[in-house]
Formats: sequence, C-alpha cells, structure tokens
Amino acid sequence: MGWKGRWGGKNRLHLFGLVGHVHPTFLSFCSYAMLYAIFCITARGDNMTEKAFQDYYPDHLAHCYGCGRLNEYGHQIKSYWDGDESIATFHPKPYHIAIPGYVYGGLIASLIDCHSTGTAAAAAYRAEGRAMDTEPPLRFVTASLHVDYLKPTPLGVTLDLRSRVKEIKGRKVVVTTTLSANGEICARGEVVAVQMPEHLTSK
Amino acid sequence: MGWKGRWGGKNRLHLFGLVGHVHPTFLSFCSYAMLYAIFCITARGDNMTEKAFQDYYPDHLAHCYGCGRLNEYGHQIKSYWDGDESIATFHPKPYHIAIPGYVYGGLIASLIDCHSTGTAAAAAYRAEGRAMDTEPPLRFVTASLHVDYLKPTPLGVTLDLRSRVKEIKGRKVVVTTTLSANGEICARGEVVAVQMPEHLTSK
Repeated sequence: MGWKGRWGGKNRLHLFGLVGHVHPTFLSFCSYAMLYAIFCITARGDNMTEKAFQDYYPDHLAHCYGCGRLNEYGHQIKSYWDGDESIATFHPKPYHIAIPGYVYGGLIASLIDCHSTGTAAAAAYRAEGRAMDTEPPLRFVTASLHVDYLKPTPLGVTLDLRSRVKEIKGRKVVVTTTLSANGEICARGEVVAVQMPEHLTSK
Repeated sequence: MGWKGRWGGKNRLHLFGLVGHVHPTFLSFCSYAMLYAIFCITARGDNMTEKAFQDYYPDHLAHCYGCGRLNEYGHQIKSYWDGDESIATFHPKPYHIAIPGYVYGGLIASLIDCHSTGTAAAAAYRAEGRAMDTEPPLRFVTASLHVDYLKPTPLGVTLDLRSRVKEIKGRKVVVTTTLSANGEICARGEVVAVQMPEHLTSK
C-alpha cells in the first residue's frame, strides 16, 4: 500500500479521531519532543538551512569531481561551518571498495582533499569578514596533501569529516582534517591549500 | 571501405607488384626500421607481453576501486616493471576535472596511491625471489600518503606514473612516485605501504 493509501481517506479520519482519546500529558510530551528535535537540528551549526561552501562557487568553477555541484559523475560533497570547525558527510558507494568490507584509500584522500580546500576558501572569506557570495571569488587548490590511515575504514556507513584551520597566512591556508566512521577516527589528513591565481578563477 | 576491402583482392596484388619496382636499399631500410621498433617495444620493460602486478591479485582481492581488475566502476590501473622502476599510465575521463582544463587532485592522489601499493607488492615478491603468482599472496595497504602538487595537471592527455622503491624493511615498503603529463612532472608522491595482515588476505 502506498503512502497516500496509508494516510489518506478513512485512515486519516481514524487518526484524528484517536487524538481525542489520548491523555493530554502524552500530547504535551510530543510537543517537547518536537521542540527538542528542532533544537538538535539547529544547534548543529545551522547547516540544515545554510548553503554549503561549495554551493557558493561560481558556475564555471563548480565542476570539480570531488565537490562541484554541477559534476553529475562526481562526489558533490558539501561542507558547512560547525563553530570553528567545518563538517561534511559522505556515504561511499559499494564499489568504493579497497578490500572486502573496507573503503578505498584513494576516496578517503579525495574527501579529505576537497573538504579541506573548501574549508580553506570559507576560512579566507571569514578572515576578510565577507560573505562567500561576494566578489572577487576566493578558490583554493591543493599544494600538498598528507593522509595517515590509522585504521581500516568500514564500508556501508556514513563517513564524517571534520576540519580545523591550523594556519592562515597570505594566500596559504593549512587545514587539518579527520575522517571518522561509527564515531572512530580512521584517517587524519593535512592539506596545504593556496589561493588560486586570478587568471584561473576568471571565466 | 573496410580494412579487408583496402588490402584484399586486386589491391594486394598491386602491392606485391610494387615491391618488385622499389630499390633494394629502401627494403633494407624498412627491415632496420622494423627491427628498431621491435627493440623499442621489448626494451620498455617487456610490459607489452607481461601481466600487470594487479592481474596477479587473487579474485577476492581484485575489487579495489583504484586497481581491481574486477571492479567495473573503478580505474583498473595496471603497473609493470621497467628495470628498477615501475610504470603505469592512465587517461582521465573528461569528468575527472578540478577546474576547467585540469585534472582533479583527488584522482592524482588515488593513482599515486594504487600504483605505489602495487609496486610495494611487486617489490616484496622480488625481494623474496619469487613470482607474483606464488603463495602466500602479498598485498599491501597504505599507512600514509603524501602528495606534492607541483603544477596543474592538464586534462585530455595520458598521464605517466613512475615509481621507485625507496626502502623495503620487514612488512614496510616506502615508494616514491612521480606523475607526469606531456613529459613534465606535475605531482610527486610518497607512500608508506605495509603488508596486509593475513586475516585480511584470506578468503
């Protein structure tokens, strides 16, 4: 039975009829639970309502295989501020395998790379005190990437990326990133990102 | 007109008739050119006739997204010995883009990672003086990966990977790798690979 079949017509009337029979304490509990859920969502960096860093990139710079919103074949990762740190999540496909049961290390490097350069861009805007949709656009490329694989990353669960800006100086931003699965850190990375030359950011 | 149409029937007779009219010096030159071509192919590590490192991996370990021959969605890179160095090539797809005209850094990291761990495995077999199809299988995973992006890597050309074993000690192999495009080194990597525990290599 479909969604409409389940909740439409007579069933819907039964549901509303039922409400009249439950104890007011139960309804009060439901209201509190709903408020708590809204608090939890908004407390997590407001990222359910904010645009991702990558969604501010101008169209001609939004084709990156790792994070470009316009690359239909790519990973399209989305990064958000969470206080002084930045966060992103990614659910690998079953074919993103290294050996049975574990995630491919090259994908882990790619996720750390893109989330870190996105964070570098967002940090540069923050340092200049301006919003990410203001001109001129600030985009960063990777000068160096280092990843330590601390333990095998299990396949089949959502991965959490969390970054912190270690250094920001001139056109260079150094970002450290962890990648976790099931709450355990599986890989730790450091990216040296440098601001892209203007001739590459222009159309 | 097809291949057979071009060279079959009367055309073939014309070709043989032509041979009788050319100068013997020209035929001699052709023979030398053919011998030189055969020398060039065989001198390049015999890799046109040898199996790639990755093609020796047992089936249950041949699904890696970077180099597994059984992963239909993956890169399926193939690495070969070229003397003391190992080589591989890869032609990125148009969607493996970073910014217009250039290759995505995460792909570069992935290629360096897989070619280096493949090289580590081949070097471990070599160090034990045994062929890659002998038991027990030796597979390596990445403990750490470092990539320096020296210049933007152009999209649309075949990339050349070249690795050298820097250190081999116990279960650890350190491999340095360059990635070149049009003969110029665009990225330089170092991978610390460690032999996979036996419980992960068994079926």
